[in-house]
Amino acid sequence: MLKRSQVKKVQERAAELYARASIVLTPSEKANIEIAEFGLGDLERQGLELVVYVNIDRYCAKELALFPSQTCPEHKHPSEENKPGKMETFRCRWGKVWLYIEGEPVGQLKAMVPKGSEAYYTVFHEVELLPGQQYTILPNTLHWFQSGPEGAIISEFSSTNTDENDSFTDPRIKRMPEIIED
Amino acid sequence: MLKRSQVKKVQERAAELYARASIVLTPSEKANIEIAEFGLGDLERQGLELVVYVNIDRYCAKELALFPSQTCPEHKHPSEENKPGKMETFRCRWGKVWLYIEGEPVGQLKAMVPKGSEAYYTVFHEVELLPGQQYTILPNTLHWFQSGPEGAIISEFSSTNTDENDSFTDPRIKRMPEIIED
Repeated sequence: MLKRSQVKKVQERAAELYARASIVLTPSEKANIEIAEFGLGDLERQGLELVVYVNIDRYCAKELALFPSQTCPEHKHPSEENKPGKMETFRCRWGKVWLYIEGEPVGQLKAMVPKGSEAYYTVFHEVELLPGQQYTILPNTLHWFQSGPEGAIISEFSSTNTDENDSFTDPRIKRMPEIIED
Repeated sequence: MLKRSQVKKVQERAAELYARASIVLTPSEKANIEIAEFGLGDLERQGLELVVYVNIDRYCAKELALFPSQTCPEHKHPSEENKPGKMETFRCRWGKVWLYIEGEPVGQLKAMVPKGSEAYYTVFHEVELLPGQQYTILPNTLHWFQSGPEGAIISEFSSTNTDENDSFTDPRIKRMPEIIED
């Protein structure tokens, strides 16, 4: 849970990161950057700063910002009533990202699993994404990702987005942001 | 129809434009930029330089480059056997774009209809897109677009792409590139 004043500060930091990556946002988009802190109260280590460009019944596109060494926690997009789960393509635009998915685990991880949350990180097949590189994540596949020391910007192209149906490994997580007005 | 040597030169110019807009492409993407000259033999005025990032049965994402004052000719994406036509969101990343769609025509166009092709431009509802601005084009809706004096880069987020089914107003147009090896 974040206070409105905190959200505003984080939005400003995220807007700076987007600008550094030459991603142009409108004033309204900047003022509405979604701050996902996942209900964990540890935004610097586990969090994500998103701009949803379009989300309709046929496709979705977002821009994701990660502050330095910030992690989006492990989750998957399960099927929903006769519909396959969300499928998504991550394209690194700026910075560096380590993406972990189901599959052969790497020996020594380049990312650092967030301390105190080790039990909720279970897939370790490593994919490094540098600017211009991309990877498509199949539906219903566990994944998590972390930025390198400078942070990262990722374009996400996907099927229709239903964040509220994301299934996180960490049962403490609440995906939908809760903001206290202050 | 273009010679392979011409295609290579145009790809290099397009790669420079992408770089100017801080869009990072892999060496393989640069070497495979699709040069759409629409069979009109007038690429400088009517053409498009594309990179398809992903095109699967659930969604598609591309980057479109336009050289200065270059036009993508008028077309629509009709329905196909029980499937609605392609729907697409254009997001201007760099430069300036004038998009024309069905609807109330503007009095004085900011774009210039390509000379000799006037008969094949029939919709004049004008939408100006600057960096960070976007517009979603409904299926089966005629549209064409032209860049401003510096050129433009547009991210296209869409439903599955089926270029071969595009319906162009100009009957002379062949959408799929033909290249002569030289």
